[in-house]
Amino acid sequence: MPSFDLRLSTLRAAYRAKDTTPAKLIGELRAKAAALNPEFNLFIHLLDDAEIAPYLDALEGRDIDSLPLYGVPFAIKDNIDLAGVPTTAACPAFAYTPDESATLVAQLIALGAVPIGKTNLDQFATGLNGTRSPYGKCRNSVHPDYPSGGSSAGSALSVALGVASFALGTDTAGSGRVPAGLNNLVGLKATKGLLSTAGVVPACRTLDCVTFFTATASEAGELFALTAKEDPRDPYSRANPLFNDAGAFGTLSPFRFGVPSTLEFAGCSESPTLFAEARAALEAAGGTAVEIDFAPFVEAAKLLYEGPWVAERYSVAGELMEANPDAVLPVIRDVLAKAPGTTAVDAFRAQYRLQALKKICDATLDRLDFVLTPSYPRPVTLDELARDPIGPNSLLGYYTNFMNLLDYAAVATPTAFMKNGLPWGVTVFGRAFTDQYLLSVADTLQRSFALPLVGGATLVAEASTRNARNDRVRLVVCGAHLDGLPLNGQLRSRGASLVEKTTSAPHYRLHALAANAGETLRPGMERVAQDGAAIDVEVWELPSIELGSFLAGIPAPLALGKVQLADGSWQTGFVCEGIGLDGATNITRFGGWRAWLAESKGS
Amino acid sequence: MPSFDLRLSTLRAAYRAKDTTPAKLIGELRAKAAALNPEFNLFIHLLDDAEIAPYLDALEGRDIDSLPLYGVPFAIKDNIDLAGVPTTAACPAFAYTPDESATLVAQLIALGAVPIGKTNLDQFATGLNGTRSPYGKCRNSVHPDYPSGGSSAGSALSVALGVASFALGTDTAGSGRVPAGLNNLVGLKATKGLLSTAGVVPACRTLDCVTFFTATASEAGELFALTAKEDPRDPYSRANPLFNDAGAFGTLSPFRFGVPSTLEFAGCSESPTLFAEARAALEAAGGTAVEIDFAPFVEAAKLLYEGPWVAERYSVAGELMEANPDAVLPVIRDVLAKAPGTTAVDAFRAQYRLQALKKICDATLDRLDFVLTPSYPRPVTLDELARDPIGPNSLLGYYTNFMNLLDYAAVATPTAFMKNGLPWGVTVFGRAFTDQYLLSVADTLQRSFALPLVGGATLVAEASTRNARNDRVRLVVCGAHLDGLPLNGQLRSRGASLVEKTTSAPHYRLHALAANAGETLRPGMERVAQDGAAIDVEVWELPSIELGSFLAGIPAPLALGKVQLADGSWQTGFVCEGIGLDGATNITRFGGWRAWLAESKGS
Repeated sequence: MPSFDLRLSTLRAAYRAKDTTPAKLIGELRAKAAALNPEFNLFIHLLDDAEIAPYLDALEGRDIDSLPLYGVPFAIKDNIDLAGVPTTAACPAFAYTPDESATLVAQLIALGAVPIGKTNLDQFATGLNGTRSPYGKCRNSVHPDYPSGGSSAGSALSVALGVASFALGTDTAGSGRVPAGLNNLVGLKATKGLLSTAGVVPACRTLDCVTFFTATASEAGELFALTAKEDPRDPYSRANPLFNDAGAFGTLSPFRFGVPSTLEFAGCSESPTLFAEARAALEAAGGTAVEIDFAPFVEAAKLLYEGPWVAERYSVAGELMEANPDAVLPVIRDVLAKAPGTTAVDAFRAQYRLQALKKICDATLDRLDFVLTPSYPRPVTLDELARDPIGPNSLLGYYTNFMNLLDYAAVATPTAFMKNGLPWGVTVFGRAFTDQYLLSVADTLQRSFALPLVGGATLVAEASTRNARNDRVRLVVCGAHLDGLPLNGQLRSRGASLVEKTTSAPHYRLHALAANAGETLRPGMERVAQDGAAIDVEVWELPSIELGSFLAGIPAPLALGKVQLADGSWQTGFVCEGIGLDGATNITRFGGWRAWLAESKGS
Repeated sequence: MPSFDLRLSTLRAAYRAKDTTPAKLIGELRAKAAALNPEFNLFIHLLDDAEIAPYLDALEGRDIDSLPLYGVPFAIKDNIDLAGVPTTAACPAFAYTPDESATLVAQLIALGAVPIGKTNLDQFATGLNGTRSPYGKCRNSVHPDYPSGGSSAGSALSVALGVASFALGTDTAGSGRVPAGLNNLVGLKATKGLLSTAGVVPACRTLDCVTFFTATASEAGELFALTAKEDPRDPYSRANPLFNDAGAFGTLSPFRFGVPSTLEFAGCSESPTLFAEARAALEAAGGTAVEIDFAPFVEAAKLLYEGPWVAERYSVAGELMEANPDAVLPVIRDVLAKAPGTTAVDAFRAQYRLQALKKICDATLDRLDFVLTPSYPRPVTLDELARDPIGPNSLLGYYTNFMNLLDYAAVATPTAFMKNGLPWGVTVFGRAFTDQYLLSVADTLQRSFALPLVGGATLVAEASTRNARNDRVRLVVCGAHLDGLPLNGQLRSRGASLVEKTTSAPHYRLHALAANAGETLRPGMERVAQDGAAIDVEVWELPSIELGSFLAGIPAPLALGKVQLADGSWQTGFVCEGIGLDGATNITRFGGWRAWLAESKGS
């Protein structure tokens, strides 16, 4: 394995220590890239001195700490615009030179990152293997008999071979995840609409995502936090009602994850064991595995190439293909061939079917924090692809094709090396907007296996002391919201479910608040420095987006703050302003609201 | 005007007082309906004794107060299933007899409501006028020269003529709003997916809604609160992250509403004045009118019939039409004719254009609480429709066709009568999930104008004492979240904007909480019974769905409760547990956090 370490934190430390400069480092990386390109074909266009100068100049005199990505080299898949450099989508006849960079590229440059080149891809991002390009096949970074995976082939290689700290890919069917799995990288396929696609050549415009390839999940989380912003240039851009920021990235609390009850490994002898090890690692990290029916996910996946979504791809390349068939690779022509015969009625009917499948899949996810799958059933060889350019490619998409159709977020992460040295990995996916949580899961896996990262470094930093946050929040209730009591419906109507009945830490007093006639009786929890008790409480879980309307309906003196539980953890829950305790009745000795209610009714 | 009052509250009182019984009342209504039908053609099928008996029997021995809709007669548009009765969609050749009722029909029956018949409609719900039916044209309830409006023609008439308390319509292009406007009714076109469409003949499955016609907005709110529930039978069903319940229905706080800067009245001499009066009524109720560019809404509207969505309609009726052209009315054949030639590429391209328009329209709505428009540019006559079945019909959809494409909620509400006696009304629309808020606006308009309701009754009940709630919440901050201070970004990143700088009511003390080195300094607001002061605060507004993740990040002893402002109102804001004030510094005399910070830095 070649030795390098271009991680964000490593570079930042090197720049701070003046061990190198952006100009020096990037000069070395460009030379390295030029040397690697004949074998790996990873770059379609490597920036020349004149092209790269403005980005380096912009760093002159800037304080390292004023730019979060100061001097960080990154590579750009060549279906994403960099101002002044041709965008080819791996189709020379399609090429154009944009005046403006893609929004995401511009964001990264503004943060101090330096683009080094445009990377090779399966033409029009149509493929999952990295060999469908007139700019040469992309072989795997580790094993010469295997492909890099695609379509973001060159981008993955640029990070895996150590010429960029991170790279931008795109992902419609799995193009940001499959190459991550095959090259020992983390691939973040964030929730649709959170990373701008303005300035990206569309594959399927309703599904396309831009992705990050990084050595580690925490770097992907950092990049995502810096760049996930609503973009007026992108009609499919959307706001995240939860959190994009790194505040949600952290250490996992006990969780439930889905695992397909039937797994497809396409005859691979090693993958089943490697997957079982990943599952076991998550169980060891506090996870409960739940077997799920994976058939609806697979059915949704098939819609992508067997259904009308091919017409979206055709709407980009179709005119060129009609006018100049030779401009488009034969395999791409084959994929797009059925699009012209597809009617709008077909398109809508497929959308209905997808919606029905989404309802089923969503219901499965509702019971879980995320789902774990392999990133692909098994690797395929370059020989296999040469013999059959379609079948082995389709196999690589078995666990990825449904993701954007169903509007899920996904992270591919390495968990093993196969006996032949080829990297192997899993994908975790979950509901839209849970990106930082999924990255936390990937981080947990990376730390569990402590594999060598690309370039040979290992993860040595401590895991985060923050708790990872998913899109559900826990709420501690102690009074009228308890199961079966008058206000419990306010929780249930918001989709809340009871997690556990427990007690608070022994530092509370419970009061029955003064109430006017006809008002619902309410308790007040008072946290005290001494003479406190453990109070019976229930912990409910509800979607985070529902909590705001719940809070809006809570009257003074009650409030939602943090309540410490018997296990020492602090959870969001009911507290009470001090003034509300004037005139209240101390009922701590009953140990809980139900016990007091029973007593009051009995008296 | 005929005299009757079938409002929910009126009926409930009559049943409680034993003035009538469901069997007696419904017997009378069925006789009335049978008498009206030759002139108005409102029913395709009126339930006979045997058909209605099970619904009446089910009420036997039930306590009135145990069933929220005890004995309430309702009519069902004949594209919505009632078990055991044919569903025709106004096309005899299409008819089938369902074994199961539509989910919404079953919900209403379970709540005590009694179906009385299936109502006439524009064939396949394709039309906005009510004359496109082999079961006869539906004339207007008030003026014989005008149509009822459609496609939910008979449903609107059933309420307007006093044979049902409420009726179910459907609304893809405006079918639940146009007939409301023409017949002095409230028409609720709720957010897509909140009222189940399972058991409804699709028009455009991706857009269809079921609607309520009622005499008053508050009744629509009541029905909506009872029935808006996620339905596993409906793949397009969705959960509401805010509130479906009547708790959001109430009296308006000061608000901002949009009005198109250019209005289309199609030469009508009266409508401009009537619209100006509606706008003035909202201004008098505390609204600030903001003129908006309506062109993107109009462009989106045109996509519905000029774009590929016609293929959705064709996917329902197309096979029948191909096999048996005479089974489908000529005008409907004309509308659907271009669908077979529309390709999947066309369909996706139109969806891209729609998404781009939605982005623009959403940005307009972001600055507003809702938008006010006429319900149609002007009424059209039966003569006009006879001469040209397409043009005048399209005119009726000018203010309605975009609504479901853009995923907005809308309420049509009466505000005037024209000189010829024809009812006239406006539509208020807003973001998805703001249904109860929009109904509150409609209620405000109904009270402002105090028009005679259908049947001649007037609104006499007091307005709600609750505040209407939109999908934004206000948050009172007093410390590190103030504009420009260290944690303000937590608000801005959630789309929050500053509403006002003010002070609390003079009942608070402000404390600087004890903090460890490196921690952000935080204040604690303590509400006190005496010796309090007014503290400088800021009121920010943010989307309700963002508040949950904000709350999750707030550490003890801080909490979000209710803070009283100088104007006496209570708003959600920061409070503090009593224990947190131990060891804190009382800084009340500075009057606010900024003043104290300035002083501390100066010292």
